[in-house]
Amino acid sequence: MRSKGFEGMTCSVAGVMGALGDRWGMLIMRDLFLGLSRYDDFRRSSGITNATLSDRLKALEEQDLITRQRYQTRPERYEYLLTEKGRDVGLVLLSMMQVGSQWNLPGLAGPPLIMVDGNSGHKVKVALVDTETGQQVSPQDVRVALGPGADDLTRWRSAGRLINPELSES
Amino acid sequence: MRSKGFEGMTCSVAGVMGALGDRWGMLIMRDLFLGLSRYDDFRRSSGITNATLSDRLKALEEQDLITRQRYQTRPERYEYLLTEKGRDVGLVLLSMMQVGSQWNLPGLAGPPLIMVDGNSGHKVKVALVDTETGQQVSPQDVRVALGPGADDLTRWRSAGRLINPELSES
Repeated sequence: MRSKGFEGMTCSVAGVMGALGDRWGMLIMRDLFLGLSRYDDFRRSSGITNATLSDRLKALEEQDLITRQRYQTRPERYEYLLTEKGRDVGLVLLSMMQVGSQWNLPGLAGPPLIMVDGNSGHKVKVALVDTETGQQVSPQDVRVALGPGADDLTRWRSAGRLINPELSES
Repeated sequence: MRSKGFEGMTCSVAGVMGALGDRWGMLIMRDLFLGLSRYDDFRRSSGITNATLSDRLKALEEQDLITRQRYQTRPERYEYLLTEKGRDVGLVLLSMMQVGSQWNLPGLAGPPLIMVDGNSGHKVKVALVDTETGQQVSPQDVRVALGPGADDLTRWRSAGRLINPELSES
């Protein structure tokens, strides 16, 4: 069953997890990101059951992460494609791919897949970048500031990472 | 119950999900990343039950994502800290935070938290970067190459995104 109760949280991390539904939802998104689009292919790729797959496809469509398009009549057959929103969520999957490979979390001989730039062939990595200078930022230098969606719980929870916490009090 | 069956998959995405356990595990990691370290604070932050929290903390410790340290005797009390591996997984959470805020997935007045560089105060974003030139790479230009951990299923699954699929056949 899909996890409930994450949709109402004042947290973007919880928001993403609520939209994806669960880890099966993420594996379907991974498959779509890699180019798979058909029901039977999702089944083959992850070994997901019919019931779970049907449910998660419906949920991902409701979340506007994927769209369903007919590619055949008699019998009617559909394929699934990422929306723009769904493609943006791909960044989360690429981050997982990178961290999982970096620490060999699946416990393999090496990374199954390596990210490359299709134009240059150079390796690509997910990194933190200063939006003004374009310079890379070290993860330990990242702080957070309160945004317009912050509530009291957000403020309390993030106090240890807040930049200028005294300013945020005002 | 923690999801099972992701640990054996030849996939770094599944590897990360297997290590995190489930979405509660991710929320605990989020809280640690934001600076929380104590059992009662995790409870307060996410509304997680005692049973689930105890289980997930144990699992995250087994996965070497967190360590437990005693900060008080009589009665003994412990706090939890991210390991180096755990801190690296923070990249996944920052990606989620970014995508969730970008698409307003939690459905708020705006992002609860904004990533900034603690030194410059500039906004920070998660981006794809060419490891040789340092230039940013557009998500749609990202392809994948087969790594040493790839198996037949990896090869089949990623065919649509493979760079030089004909080379990979050899």
